[in-house]
Amino acid sequence: MNVKPLGARVVIKPLEKEERTKSGIVLPDTAKEKPQQGKVIAVGPGRTLESGTKVELEVKEGDTVIFSKYAGTEVKIDGEEYIILDGERDILAIVQG
Amino acid sequence: MNVKPLGARVVIKPLEKEERTKSGIVLPDTAKEKPQQGKVIAVGPGRTLESGTKVELEVKEGDTVIFSKYAGTEVKIDGEEYIILDGERDILAIVQG
Amino acid sequence: MNVKPLGARVVIKPLEKEERTKSGIVLPDTAKEKPQQGKVIAVGPGRTLESGTKVELEVKEGDTVIFSKYAGTEVKIDGEEYIILDGERDILAIVQG
Amino acid sequence: MNVKPLGARVVIKPLEKEERTKSGIVLPDTAKEKPQQGKVIAVGPGRTLESGTKVELEVKEGDTVIFSKYAGTEVKIDGEEYIILDGERDILAIVQG
Amino acid sequence: MNVKPLGARVVIKPLEKEERTKSGIVLPDTAKEKPQQGKVIAVGPGRTLESGTKVELEVKEGDTVIFSKYAGTEVKIDGEEYIILDGERDILAIVQG
Amino acid sequence: MNVKPLGARVVIKPLEKEERTKSGIVLPDTAKEKPQQGKVIAVGPGRTLESGTKVELEVKEGDTVIFSKYAGTEVKIDGEEYIILDGERDILAIVQG
Amino acid sequence: MNVKPLGARVVIKPLEKEERTKSGIVLPDTAKEKPQQGKVIAVGPGRTLESGTKVELEVKEGDTVIFSKYAGTEVKIDGEEYIILDGERDILAIVQG
Repeated sequence: MNVKPLGARVVIKPLEKEERTKSGIVLPDTAKEKPQQGKVIAVGPGRTLESGTKVELEVKEGDTVIFSKYAGTEVKIDGEEYIILDGERDILAIVQG
Repeated sequence: MNVKPLGARVVIKPLEKEERTKSGIVLPDTAKEKPQQGKVIAVGPGRTLESGTKVELEVKEGDTVIFSKYAGTEVKIDGEEYIILDGERDILAIVQG
Repeated sequence: MNVKPLGARVVIKPLEKEERTKSGIVLPDTAKEKPQQGKVIAVGPGRTLESGTKVELEVKEGDTVIFSKYAGTEVKIDGEEYIILDGERDILAIVQG
Repeated sequence: MNVKPLGARVVIKPLEKEERTKSGIVLPDTAKEKPQQGKVIAVGPGRTLESGTKVELEVKEGDTVIFSKYAGTEVKIDGEEYIILDGERDILAIVQG
Repeated sequence: MNVKPLGARVVIKPLEKEERTKSGIVLPDTAKEKPQQGKVIAVGPGRTLESGTKVELEVKEGDTVIFSKYAGTEVKIDGEEYIILDGERDILAIVQG
Repeated sequence: MNVKPLGARVVIKPLEKEERTKSGIVLPDTAKEKPQQGKVIAVGPGRTLESGTKVELEVKEGDTVIFSKYAGTEVKIDGEEYIILDGERDILAIVQG
Repeated sequence: MNVKPLGARVVIKPLEKEERTKSGIVLPDTAKEKPQQGKVIAVGPGRTLESGTKVELEVKEGDTVIFSKYAGTEVKIDGEEYIILDGERDILAIVQG
């Protein structure tokens, strides 16, 4: 993958409907904040605190995550669609197993 | 449960009406902020302060809590409905014993 | 009381009109911010500062307090009505003696 | 006085028109922010900084002060009208001598 | 002068048109933010930083300053009109010589 | 290049459509936040944290970056069009290889 | 120049159109944020951080700068028009050589 996100940003590949159903997790269209599932493709170095310390993100490449549907910026790379979002604010949880 | 919340986020299973009545706590529909009861299913690692310290959440798995009704994001896992919310901002209190 | 507030939250039992008059303090209906009197039922552990220190609340169980009328969330426990509010932002003063 | 303000709050007794004129200070009705004069009745312990330090207020009991007219909350105690306001944000100056 | 400003507040006596022209500085009526000239009459002890340090103001009694026209609160003392404003936010510059 | 950006600002030369297509990255017109590609021409010294530390930017001269389309200020230098933007807030990622 | 700016403020003399063209930099009227060129006439002592440290400005007297067109306050001194603005927020870049 030839895109390196900056700061606390994360590149996500949204999962298709059929992929999502396999994990047993369904995010209803009627949900208040419309979350979505995706795979983490690339992770930025993290946010810099006012104290100067850098906070690493809690997600890593390959994680399947739930994120806010209307968050971030869509980018198309080699015909595939990705989303660049804020890994602290816009990713809600990691789907395990 | 195969969902791991990030930061200060908490996964909640909302309680049905009959379950809520047993505890003797009723949250009226006419309430100004419409609180709701639920059981804590999973807890994130906590919020990172500007000083770099991580603040653990005050709730733990299994706690019954009162939370703001319109807070958070609905997620359906294996047919069950959950809510992912901010454990510091959206949970008001723990219901004991 | 089986509700334990989180953070800087406080559980208040609003005082009835006749109880309020006894203390000699009257909060007029025409007041700009509509304050109200109540008794402190339970107190959270306090707010965590960015430095990591926890600030204990200035009120304790049993205090009679003046609080902002439209603040907080109403909760009904065993038929009694309570309010959960922010003990730093919403409580203005303690009524003494 | 049986009301103890919390945090940076201050209890003020607004001065009547005739009392104000004696000091030679007149706050015109046409003023942009409509300041008002009053006597400090009770002072809270002060605001807690993010570093954990408490900042004492610059006013003390008995001071005559100029404060913003629309600030604070009106409270009636034993038939007298008082105002509880933020001693840092809402009090502009102390009237001396 | 018998008014002592609090915090970072400053008491200003606005200069009349003829006084302003002498300094060679004219603030046009068509200016975007409408600045005004005045003389510093009294200066507060300064703003308290989150670290607990107090920041002294950069103006002192007797300085002629340019300040934002719509800032602050008008006060009339012994028949003279003054303005109490925020010495950090509302004063733009000192007029020298 | 004779323009030196201040603080966390970065001077960007937007890439033409044909240049963008070569990298295999296409930013669709229908994207929610309309990102755009460009080359970094000059980089400011970085943002100063409240602790006094300066945070260097994560991009350097010559980097190809994805940035928010409506961010920043357009400047024309010697007939060429550039954009000056906030290198932390407005640049999303570096395009590698 | 007899005006001394306070804090992070800077006094700017806007450049006339003909002066601007000589540097080869043209700021189009259709620009989204309408930047403008000017010469730095006087520089304030800088902003005070919450830690108590003072941050010196990155511009100095005599610099030619690009600044946001609608920023700041117009002041006329001895018949000449100047602008007082925030040297950190409103100045984008220094024009060199």
